[in-house]
Amino acid sequence: MTQATIAVVAPGDMGSAIGHRLVGAGWRVITDLTDRSPRSRQLAATAGIIAVDGLATLAGEAEIVLSVMPPASALAFARRLAAAAGAARPLFVDLNAIAPATAQDIAAALGARGIDMIDGGIIGGPPRGADAGPRIYVAGYGLARLDGLRDAGLDIRSMDGGIGAASGLKMCYASLTKGITALQIEALVAARALGCAEDLHAELSFSQNALVARADAWLPQSCPKAYRWVGEMEEIADTFAAVGLTPDIFRGVADIYRFVEATPLGRETPETRGLAQDAGDVSSILAAALPAAKSD
Amino acid sequence: MTQATIAVVAPGDMGSAIGHRLVGAGWRVITDLTDRSPRSRQLAATAGIIAVDGLATLAGEAEIVLSVMPPASALAFARRLAAAAGAARPLFVDLNAIAPATAQDIAAALGARGIDMIDGGIIGGPPRGADAGPRIYVAGYGLARLDGLRDAGLDIRSMDGGIGAASGLKMCYASLTKGITALQIEALVAARALGCAEDLHAELSFSQNALVARADAWLPQSCPKAYRWVGEMEEIADTFAAVGLTPDIFRGVADIYRFVEATPLGRETPETRGLAQDAGDVSSILAAALPAAKSD
Repeated sequence: MTQATIAVVAPGDMGSAIGHRLVGAGWRVITDLTDRSPRSRQLAATAGIIAVDGLATLAGEAEIVLSVMPPASALAFARRLAAAAGAARPLFVDLNAIAPATAQDIAAALGARGIDMIDGGIIGGPPRGADAGPRIYVAGYGLARLDGLRDAGLDIRSMDGGIGAASGLKMCYASLTKGITALQIEALVAARALGCAEDLHAELSFSQNALVARADAWLPQSCPKAYRWVGEMEEIADTFAAVGLTPDIFRGVADIYRFVEATPLGRETPETRGLAQDAGDVSSILAAALPAAKSD
Repeated sequence: MTQATIAVVAPGDMGSAIGHRLVGAGWRVITDLTDRSPRSRQLAATAGIIAVDGLATLAGEAEIVLSVMPPASALAFARRLAAAAGAARPLFVDLNAIAPATAQDIAAALGARGIDMIDGGIIGGPPRGADAGPRIYVAGYGLARLDGLRDAGLDIRSMDGGIGAASGLKMCYASLTKGITALQIEALVAARALGCAEDLHAELSFSQNALVARADAWLPQSCPKAYRWVGEMEEIADTFAAVGLTPDIFRGVADIYRFVEATPLGRETPETRGLAQDAGDVSSILAAALPAAKSD
């Protein structure tokens, strides 16, 4: 029996871990490494993902294409794949952190070439070892075509509501987790700049102790991911604006992550980071990088 | 021995409770009820606060004036008091949720008339019964002049840093508590509008259960206070902008509370509210009030 083939684009932290789980379940997993970083090549090789040459080959060989990439790249990638697919008609599963309207744009671009799309959103960290892995929410027509992924050990959860429903859920969820992290960064950096960081820490330890623990656990590991979150926060802003809510909160959250990205903490990688051990380290380093402080 | 006299302006929830504690400790507590609501008159009377006629009388009789009011009123009130004080020189204690720069503007307006100011910020709910009450942070010169308030059972905490330090602390703290509440309102209302509210609730119950409990506890009781928080969120935006951080998050948070204020939930009072029992009720009612939904 021929192995079923699935493409995972791109093999970053999440994509390579999903690919690895599918490889373990007997799928042939391919990717296109044209112009990818040495880190992506290494992650793909370690995961057992096979490199193929270009998107035309990828689209021709894969029954299913999983798109897992920074949100700003999602629509452009779908268009490139549609253009390269020729007569091939792989099922396209968009798992990116994008606004429902962006998901609908992607569905339209693929649909114009006769390619079906399923809308998805990933909540939780990459699947590792015996871990159940993230919840992968999916919406659209023909969700039964993903049963093979569920059988392979991915936690696929079907939603009603059609294209955009899974993306909308991801946006709302991420607005809470990454929004709270941005609020904590802004408050703690401002307190440092205003000279009341110790008082704020004492007051929070007394009245909001869960927030202190959360900041220590999450702020150091969030900084190296800030560059990826800028585009995601802008997608959240668009999502909220589309239903009549203010986009300003998440435009501002994007600003916070853009600021973090440009600091020494934002330039570290998840694998090599070490400048900050707790929230106090994070706020000290970021406060020193404030534009106002620079002009002193 | 003559009773020491203190003025509390205005006797809302917080001001009347602080006044009541001071009355209990033997202070003579006065206020000016000119143009105040029947609710404020009732709160003052219940607290044992004595009404005096106009700001000139108030300034002439009080050794200390505590300003406890919505932030948008704080500077205008200080100016009116300075203009009305004549030869009187009460110590002015600003306890409002204002930006450090606003506190400095108030200190300057009072200083021009020879009136000393102490900068303060209140964190926590009104003092009730045997409860320790809120932490009242104070900064500036002559903090020993507040020892009588501490002796009366108020939790007064001195800070270094001069005028603006206590206000800065209050801004950073409130940005977390009221910011997280606004993020929850926006996410849950958006999910309702996008048709994924049940899925979001299930996912949050699984992976962020503390947020579900927090939303159910806080969202219903926050809506009647939204009108008061709009100005406070704008002061937070100004505070963050002054140190080089984005003001957009809290301009957006102010938009959220402005939106809530105009809904049936925002028009309830803390004493009479009853439309919403949990976060699900809040998001349903607010989603029905969205501009986009109205145009259907």
